[in-house]
Amino acid sequence: MNLWGDRVGYSKYKYEGLLNLCLEVFQRLGYTKEDSYTIGEVLLLADLFGIESHGVQRLTLYYKGIRNGSIKVKNHMNIVKESPVSVVIDGDGGMGQIISKKAMERAIDKAKKTGIGMAIVKNSNHFGIAGYYSRMAERKGLMGIAMTNTRAIVLPTYGREQMLGTNPISIAMPARPIPFLLDMATSVITRGKVEVYSKNNQKLNYGWAMDDEGRKTDNPDKVLKLANGNTGGLLPLGGDTEIFGGHKGYGISFAVEMFTSILSGGLTSDEIRGNNNTNGVCHAFAAIDYGLFDDKNAIEKRMSAYMQKIRNSKKAYGASRIYTHGEKELEAYEDRMENGIPINENTIVEIKEICDYVDIDINNYLKKY
Amino acid sequence: MNLWGDRVGYSKYKYEGLLNLCLEVFQRLGYTKEDSYTIGEVLLLADLFGIESHGVQRLTLYYKGIRNGSIKVKNHMNIVKESPVSVVIDGDGGMGQIISKKAMERAIDKAKKTGIGMAIVKNSNHFGIAGYYSRMAERKGLMGIAMTNTRAIVLPTYGREQMLGTNPISIAMPARPIPFLLDMATSVITRGKVEVYSKNNQKLNYGWAMDDEGRKTDNPDKVLKLANGNTGGLLPLGGDTEIFGGHKGYGISFAVEMFTSILSGGLTSDEIRGNNNTNGVCHAFAAIDYGLFDDKNAIEKRMSAYMQKIRNSKKAYGASRIYTHGEKELEAYEDRMENGIPINENTIVEIKEICDYVDIDINNYLKKY
Repeated sequence: MNLWGDRVGYSKYKYEGLLNLCLEVFQRLGYTKEDSYTIGEVLLLADLFGIESHGVQRLTLYYKGIRNGSIKVKNHMNIVKESPVSVVIDGDGGMGQIISKKAMERAIDKAKKTGIGMAIVKNSNHFGIAGYYSRMAERKGLMGIAMTNTRAIVLPTYGREQMLGTNPISIAMPARPIPFLLDMATSVITRGKVEVYSKNNQKLNYGWAMDDEGRKTDNPDKVLKLANGNTGGLLPLGGDTEIFGGHKGYGISFAVEMFTSILSGGLTSDEIRGNNNTNGVCHAFAAIDYGLFDDKNAIEKRMSAYMQKIRNSKKAYGASRIYTHGEKELEAYEDRMENGIPINENTIVEIKEICDYVDIDINNYLKKY
Repeated sequence: MNLWGDRVGYSKYKYEGLLNLCLEVFQRLGYTKEDSYTIGEVLLLADLFGIESHGVQRLTLYYKGIRNGSIKVKNHMNIVKESPVSVVIDGDGGMGQIISKKAMERAIDKAKKTGIGMAIVKNSNHFGIAGYYSRMAERKGLMGIAMTNTRAIVLPTYGREQMLGTNPISIAMPARPIPFLLDMATSVITRGKVEVYSKNNQKLNYGWAMDDEGRKTDNPDKVLKLANGNTGGLLPLGGDTEIFGGHKGYGISFAVEMFTSILSGGLTSDEIRGNNNTNGVCHAFAAIDYGLFDDKNAIEKRMSAYMQKIRNSKKAYGASRIYTHGEKELEAYEDRMENGIPINENTIVEIKEICDYVDIDINNYLKKY
């Protein structure tokens, strides 16, 4: 859930303080300064973009994973297979953000040489927001694609067993004044959204989720409880049957599985299901130098003009604005850099526990606005 | 609409006769035997797969396009730009099937050499079903991707102006006993489905389409009439707002636009809108040799096993079967090869007119079952 403006239970904090906190916490947990910076940057980009579920509120999850050993600190990430256009990386159970940034860097290097670079990763962990990695390519003047499988919670069309993850895809491409940045779960909603609805005692919309018998439900707690079993869960984009195209969302989700776990030989989403954490997830990254196809400036101009034309097109009844993808996130980014990042009080309590454990004073880092 | 079994107004015809008819018609319209075969094969694969809207019922559309010159017979398809991993083709207004088959063949050749081949096409025409081309790669032991923009009929989220096509994507990959073949419009439903509902005097489901003021409508005629204007139309996969993920379908549709028209410099879907035919559409094809990532047999085994696991997983309440993508099409294919292809009587009347024009006897080709 995006949080615009002030909310009860939230205070705003400066980006720099939060980044320094991440830098210190992860170094004290054993990571290098550079790797700690990467982790902090990925987490905080989510907060800056208004995607709270994937921001510092996930610190506890990572911290627990590191302490219980499901996320390794000293890992031996290694290259399994490589060609001028591709690389397969075994993450050896390390931190998803570190492995993924390195993988996308390799894809970018290859794209700069051959025009196209693909990096497939197995044995990784939750990598944060997919948009961080596609955006890496976009900021280098390339098209970027990032996807990951996740612990299964999504049902195939006509099924009630969790066989697929929310399997997000992100695609980014340069444009002016606002780059294109699509970052979407291939399910109707994300696991994080169910968690927010549960916290707020809200009911889900019918058509988002099914119970353990494969009937529609509006009870978020039922879904979250069930997500630790293996029946009931979220519906793929398009809903529960073929009427509104649920089989299409299921197909796109399956394609993500194919590019990540099937190609790499890592765990499929349903195999991660039993882990009760994200250990073993697989990612896929691609960078494409669109100079392969035409003059790059000409392509960027066409892209920018088409996006502008859509933003300016006629509005639906009752609608005030048409967005292109990445526009909302950029506006949140600018606001939060200027006015601070809203963090939930419960998250602050969790972060304080982590600070106590690694023996740093939270007040040295978190500056309220 | 898939047609299983007998329907009023339909008779079944043999595949060979229909193929010979296409072969003769297109040769008499000026195409070579080889190119006429390609056109017939693409059209009839749609009929065999049960996708009637893209089958021989489209003959009239192509025939009219050829006669009025919007589809050229003698065209000078040429290569605009090429690299070891990519090619950009200007179709010069020729027949979409012929251009697209050649484009995918090039992508396949490149994938066999470098591992990845992309072919981007501009100035083409309607290419039939996307699945034909992705399947070409699949049958050569590669992963295949095909997409196209189309004449605009889809509304961006919060918009009421047709800015995007139904922009289908197809992804295919070998597996046993049934290959993976996803072939989907990125809108909730296709233009063809609205046409079928109109013919049958059926109402649309709310959530499929909007009227010219940007309000939900269930009237197919209103949508079809409006589709010749520029407001009102179909919703992207996920529906009209962000509640069920309409912005995701809009994003995927935009990405198809990016890979086809933006990269190639051809017409965007909204620019084709005014043409009142499909002249100027753009396509994108990719072939990937997944031997880049692991032993090919090992990948195919994992793929087949995961698909089987999904087919065998627990069913939703009231559901009797879970399909993987391409399974329904393959069953229809086998049935129709054995028992004939059902063709609507109106379509037969249209085909007879074409036969009369090119001076052949329809009875020499169409053998009823």
